[in-house]
Amino acid sequence: MRSYRKELCFNTSTKRAYINITPQVEECLRESGIKEGFLLCNAMHITASVFINDDERGLHKDIDDWLEKLAPHEPVSQYRHNAGEDNADGHLKRSIMGREVVVAITGGKLDFGPWEQIFYGEFDGKRKKRVLVKIIGE
Amino acid sequence: MRSYRKELCFNTSTKRAYINITPQVEECLRESGIKEGFLLCNAMHITASVFINDDERGLHKDIDDWLEKLAPHEPVSQYRHNAGEDNADGHLKRSIMGREVVVAITGGKLDFGPWEQIFYGEFDGKRKKRVLVKIIGE
Amino acid sequence: MRSYRKELCFNTSTKRAYINITPQVEECLRESGIKEGFLLCNAMHITASVFINDDERGLHKDIDDWLEKLAPHEPVSQYRHNAGEDNADGHLKRSIMGREVVVAITGGKLDFGPWEQIFYGEFDGKRKKRVLVKIIGE
Repeated sequence: MRSYRKELCFNTSTKRAYINITPQVEECLRESGIKEGFLLCNAMHITASVFINDDERGLHKDIDDWLEKLAPHEPVSQYRHNAGEDNADGHLKRSIMGREVVVAITGGKLDFGPWEQIFYGEFDGKRKKRVLVKIIGE
Repeated sequence: MRSYRKELCFNTSTKRAYINITPQVEECLRESGIKEGFLLCNAMHITASVFINDDERGLHKDIDDWLEKLAPHEPVSQYRHNAGEDNADGHLKRSIMGREVVVAITGGKLDFGPWEQIFYGEFDGKRKKRVLVKIIGE
Repeated sequence: MRSYRKELCFNTSTKRAYINITPQVEECLRESGIKEGFLLCNAMHITASVFINDDERGLHKDIDDWLEKLAPHEPVSQYRHNAGEDNADGHLKRSIMGREVVVAITGGKLDFGPWEQIFYGEFDGKRKKRVLVKIIGE
């Protein structure tokens, strides 16, 4: 069994952002040389997500509006976590979108359906945050 | 390390559906011959889910009503993704229910608690869609 | 490839509870002797979650209030699953928080960001329930 590890770094200019990281993950896979196995991609921070969906800007705006409706940022005083912080909503938004994805590796490629793309979802940005890519296989 | 891959196909007669796919996944596991490892089962489409819950029809109706309340289909005009499409709600419903499950394989079996069953959740059906089963181990 | 398996048991005194199980999972990892690989930690019951977030009590109260708002326990009659049961809301709450986490193992440690901790989320407690830890690697 072989394994590979890499961190990707992000520092978004907005508090919330949705970034297609598929090309960077594919680059990791190429570097690893692994042909058959599993790839784990997870946010290393607890107010961010890694998820798989469609690379369509309208949809990302829909997701953002919807998350803000289900777990609104304001008023920040509604959350007990926000004593000295204001990012409780980011923890909740990330709970909906998920921390991680596990992707099958087949023939040296991400074994994806036609529209699957990997996204970094940032819910408390404007600072440096990391994503972990770990691959095991042969 | 051994690996195994298979696609399962679905074409539901309704827009939304919940199908117990545990028997098909168990058949994949038998075919693989793998005794110890991990099994990944994921939707290959971005308006569908694979999730684990109870095989109880009342619960599936509850889940369906609840998802429709959290991410309603109508009015389709409320979503920016729906320019030429009408399935934005399916992308959101799938975000709640998740894309994939990872299941431990122990002694050649799905290592499950008493009520765990694997479901395919369809949120934009009436067309052919696929689920990936990938197993790694020994 | 080596593999390791252990069940953790919980019997919470309250219907809902959030327990930091990171020390127990780390003990499993030490016992396994595995240095590189993947660790799967999942609830074996369908009204419970395993998730990764911040170990901060105010946040856990926020999560609990928020889940109760999105999938309220009362009135129990609103759910079709509740014919003889009263835990339909637990199935829905678990759907939001997720069944499982997959964690990278690097250098014999959980490969975590600065604040990542693993939690057991109980949504229908006061009885014995189990969590599975399965590790594969070398």
